[in-house]
Amino acid sequence: MVKQARAVATRHQLVAAAAAAFDQRGFEGASLGDIIEAGTGLSKGALYFHFKSKEELADAVVQRQHEISLAAVEAIAATHAPALEQIVMLCHEMGRQIVQDPIVRAGIRLTLEFSSGGGPPDPAGPYRDWIEACRQLAETAIAEGDLPGTVDAPELARFVISAFTGVQMVSNVLDRRVDLEQRIDQMWRFLLPGIMVPARRRKCERIRHARWNRPQTST
Amino acid sequence: MVKQARAVATRHQLVAAAAAAFDQRGFEGASLGDIIEAGTGLSKGALYFHFKSKEELADAVVQRQHEISLAAVEAIAATHAPALEQIVMLCHEMGRQIVQDPIVRAGIRLTLEFSSGGGPPDPAGPYRDWIEACRQLAETAIAEGDLPGTVDAPELARFVISAFTGVQMVSNVLDRRVDLEQRIDQMWRFLLPGIMVPARRRKCERIRHARWNRPQTST
Repeated sequence: MVKQARAVATRHQLVAAAAAAFDQRGFEGASLGDIIEAGTGLSKGALYFHFKSKEELADAVVQRQHEISLAAVEAIAATHAPALEQIVMLCHEMGRQIVQDPIVRAGIRLTLEFSSGGGPPDPAGPYRDWIEACRQLAETAIAEGDLPGTVDAPELARFVISAFTGVQMVSNVLDRRVDLEQRIDQMWRFLLPGIMVPARRRKCERIRHARWNRPQTST
Repeated sequence: MVKQARAVATRHQLVAAAAAAFDQRGFEGASLGDIIEAGTGLSKGALYFHFKSKEELADAVVQRQHEISLAAVEAIAATHAPALEQIVMLCHEMGRQIVQDPIVRAGIRLTLEFSSGGGPPDPAGPYRDWIEACRQLAETAIAEGDLPGTVDAPELARFVISAFTGVQMVSNVLDRRVDLEQRIDQMWRFLLPGIMVPARRRKCERIRHARWNRPQTST
């Protein structure tokens, strides 16, 4: 059992080191064996015992990013906030993760790189899941009366995730993401008045300022 | 003079062949010498006579993409359509270019790759120019009464270019951009009612359907 726990810990360590390399240099640019040897003290042998190829390691990074994102969706759902507020919270939490977590940044970079090249990890998976989570929230927001029944929930969800993606990419290109939180807030300022039920628009400000208070972890 | 014209033609040929390679494999993945030799019949010697490095060639591709984009901005300005319609036209024309022109696709891919790695071509240039063009149009749209004076033109311009960027990227990841035109249209359907002056909202549909009729080139 100790041996198994050590294997899991080693796997996590390898995924974290690989994510740091992919985040900085992309899939083609990262020479993983060297980076992992230097950064973790683990041999290339240990790496290839756990992962047969760079593709497999990239896949593990994207999977891990995926789990982190879905955990945020669930944690935000547990707040039982109105669904439209949850969508705003989710965008800000995704922004925070991108700024603070190299695994999330690496996962996003790999996803975009593979989307041009058609590499082995399915780059569409995380986007489909984010859009699906957002679609469910949009349906609930219609039921709660914040969005009109005329809104096409799948189209709105797709646009919100697309707009968020662009906001974080352009924030990276122009300002290394230091202004990301502010840009996400601007996105909602432009978007909310156009999509909300007119009688609910007085709630725009409250919805725009909805944030998830992430519990402080002790580790 | 004939010699000079031939040199210019060769340069164009090299940039086009490099763009095709960058579009497919990205900066790190493209081995240019091989690709250009195979695709154009030009030797690696000819390549390195014109471009000292892969970086220089990448820079030339991004420059060319830049010129193509700015030419569209100017051509659309010459229609003298209302400024808000011009912004819609510009987004659709940028979408068309991405789908149809490998130089534009390669330029965008390189820009995003360099934005993570900080490579030698300035990846921010094209974004700054698009945002500036869109900001000027937004200012004009305020003067024309379609946008309220309370709209922050630089922030709106930044958001429009960001949202467009995300829409085209997610359309690429999920659907290889076959639905891009439709997704751009949905973006404007969600965005226009929230940003326009209420008394002008009856014009939403007309503005959303504004398109630039690109003149057919004979070549």
